[in-house]
Amino acid sequence: MEKFELHILGCGSALPTTRHFATSQVINLRDKLFMIDCGEAAQLQFRKAQLKFSRLNHIFISHLHGDHCFGLLGLISTFSLLGRTAELHIHSPKGLEAILSPMLKFFCYNLSYKVVFHEFNTKKTTLIYEDRSLTVSTIPLQHRIPCCGFLFSEKLGLRHILRDMIDFYEVPIYEINKIKNGFDYLTPDGVLIPNSRLTMPADPIRKYAYCSDTIFNPEITEQLSEVNLLFHEATFAQSELARARETFHSTAEQAASIAKEANAKQLIIGHFSARYENEEQLLSEASTIFPNTIVAKEGLCIKI
Amino acid sequence: MEKFELHILGCGSALPTTRHFATSQVINLRDKLFMIDCGEAAQLQFRKAQLKFSRLNHIFISHLHGDHCFGLLGLISTFSLLGRTAELHIHSPKGLEAILSPMLKFFCYNLSYKVVFHEFNTKKTTLIYEDRSLTVSTIPLQHRIPCCGFLFSEKLGLRHILRDMIDFYEVPIYEINKIKNGFDYLTPDGVLIPNSRLTMPADPIRKYAYCSDTIFNPEITEQLSEVNLLFHEATFAQSELARARETFHSTAEQAASIAKEANAKQLIIGHFSARYENEEQLLSEASTIFPNTIVAKEGLCIKI
Repeated sequence: MEKFELHILGCGSALPTTRHFATSQVINLRDKLFMIDCGEAAQLQFRKAQLKFSRLNHIFISHLHGDHCFGLLGLISTFSLLGRTAELHIHSPKGLEAILSPMLKFFCYNLSYKVVFHEFNTKKTTLIYEDRSLTVSTIPLQHRIPCCGFLFSEKLGLRHILRDMIDFYEVPIYEINKIKNGFDYLTPDGVLIPNSRLTMPADPIRKYAYCSDTIFNPEITEQLSEVNLLFHEATFAQSELARARETFHSTAEQAASIAKEANAKQLIIGHFSARYENEEQLLSEASTIFPNTIVAKEGLCIKI
Repeated sequence: MEKFELHILGCGSALPTTRHFATSQVINLRDKLFMIDCGEAAQLQFRKAQLKFSRLNHIFISHLHGDHCFGLLGLISTFSLLGRTAELHIHSPKGLEAILSPMLKFFCYNLSYKVVFHEFNTKKTTLIYEDRSLTVSTIPLQHRIPCCGFLFSEKLGLRHILRDMIDFYEVPIYEINKIKNGFDYLTPDGVLIPNSRLTMPADPIRKYAYCSDTIFNPEITEQLSEVNLLFHEATFAQSELARARETFHSTAEQAASIAKEANAKQLIIGHFSARYENEEQLLSEASTIFPNTIVAKEGLCIKI
């Protein structure tokens, strides 16, 4: 299987603590890096995770609250000091470019590269990134301000050649790529060898969904169907349900019921309120509903 | 002696590393806290140092480079989440309010307290803060943009009462404060007891000077005369002298010669370039000129 990993750089909520940094994550798909949210000190956590700045070209910002984007200025500034030349693409709800540009002009007036802002509509699911192995789509969420989660879907790869059968039928090399793409093979004698005899199916595609910040919203489960890993915010324990509703956040139990409803393979909870000295209660409440739940933690790297 | 301490929150330079945070320090004078510079993640380091946010009312920004002020937004935002009501005063060169205000309006539109900006002229020494135990004055520095260091001077305290002599002369309690302030005592019999027989001198005043960022500039030594502790930037080793001049920074040796010329009691060097994997070379070069030199380090607390 190709590399598809999630790095947790920060999983606290608005109020930082000595235990948690503000929100930021990195997806590593085949050594291309994608950052999701960029809270204060994300660049420091990125370095600590021993990730390579040069592999990061796209940043996805869920919403314009400070704990999800105050790290952008430092990161952009550092890239320039390092002499970056590749464009940096920042995808976010409307408003980020207008508010960030004056700061960039003032503090980073001599940027060595271009920052390209892409602003998306938070009301509907939109394909916002695509390359030959990945698509990223928005997941409309309900928070106090416009907000989206992100669905990272691998594209179906090539079928796997059965080396023995290729040798047996003496398939010439220039035919291999077609066969990997699912075509049958016609021998020089005019015999059609069905693709299924020459190949094994491609690896199943994998999906990662990021949902933060959001009030409990079962409407998103359809889009999350069968994801391999779901990150869902779990700011509060069930005892703070009223507070969760009031602030448009979720409880750990609610996160778990989204995972269950979506038939996700694994759930990782995060965006913890500063009031919790550890995450035992949150994990316990989520696991009761959805057993395959893990707790986010700075420095954690999970294979998807 | 009353408490007068320096906490190092960050002592790296523009490029953060896994070893150093961007510049920020806190002075603790009798449990009043004063922040000097506020690089990214200063609020996190502040918490780690177990300092109390409620004791911090004044922040002094040396100059408007990102590594000295990108932490302000997060700090201001956190204070509001914590329900702060006391005004927060930010002293800086001209321009900070104009550039920060739109961000504050956007991200912290409902601040629970007032942020008051005070902008100073960086060309001449100015008294920018005063209370009954402390003055803070600017130290004009030479950097690529307008920049000042800061001189923290204790005010002379009260003289110490000699308890035995007070008892001997049967001095009434209501006279004590006058005597602490240096007045003589007139007994009911009309005998004048000189203050020197009733008291010991007040503790000597202490001074702390912060000089960063700056090119080597011996003109500042007069203002630094006899300081108890001098923080001077030492971005580079002597081998990078040309680079230091070009970027308006100092070498460790230059920092030490400022300390020596000023007859400072102790020197602490910081603002280390990311190129150094440790500070041995910098310490060695500084110590040759000024033996009582120490190296700044995140988490370090030094009594002044």
